[in-house]
Amino acid sequence: MAPSAEDIRKTVERYVEVVATGTVDDVLALYADGAVVEDPVGTDPRTTVESIREFYGVIEPLQQTSELHTLRIAGNTAAFHFSLVTELGEQKLEIAPIDVMTFDDDGKITTMKAYWSQEDMVTR
Amino acid sequence: MAPSAEDIRKTVERYVEVVATGTVDDVLALYADGAVVEDPVGTDPRTTVESIREFYGVIEPLQQTSELHTLRIAGNTAAFHFSLVTELGEQKLEIAPIDVMTFDDDGKITTMKAYWSQEDMVTR
Repeated sequence: MAPSAEDIRKTVERYVEVVATGTVDDVLALYADGAVVEDPVGTDPRTTVESIREFYGVIEPLQQTSELHTLRIAGNTAAFHFSLVTELGEQKLEIAPIDVMTFDDDGKITTMKAYWSQEDMVTR
Repeated sequence: MAPSAEDIRKTVERYVEVVATGTVDDVLALYADGAVVEDPVGTDPRTTVESIREFYGVIEPLQQTSELHTLRIAGNTAAFHFSLVTELGEQKLEIAPIDVMTFDDDGKITTMKAYWSQEDMVTR
């Protein structure tokens, strides 16, 4: 059975939460086996658990906050705009990508593509 | 040569403008030959010029305004959140999808996927 819009919404909300304040394991728990991550779009997709773990491992120790701005669900896919703010001493670094995810029948993420470029990183 | 971010930005801004206030021909002029349109995601993709013309023909006669809220560009693709407001007598119908487009070397649209569902249509 396909995931409901509510299942998808919960996974996205949990993702936005744990990508900022959770552990790598919290993030990986949202992904299905065999998931593919392309972040940002145009870079080599990460197709192994190890490479996805490495990706989220980089941001795990950072002090971050996040906010979900816009979420659109269509079939078994979601597109959403969120922001991730990293505290760097007295500075803050904000990146606010648009992500697109597909989900399996259990509401786990099967693919994630993040749309952003260097010019979208803002310090303040 | 791949399209520049500036080429992509111009095509997206023009798309958001003409989808609301232009003609079907204005919209089709932004698409490359052989383009594919899936709106909303999960419906049958439109793969012929005739079927894409039919799609935009439905909204051409409507009185509409539009606004681009967020645009993210990654490689030869763009993801953007915009709103399209249709005047229906004293009521307004707003739909604010997230669209994802890919572009050819000339900055023309090769694929368009629109993420939204019925529950995102708001009357006010």
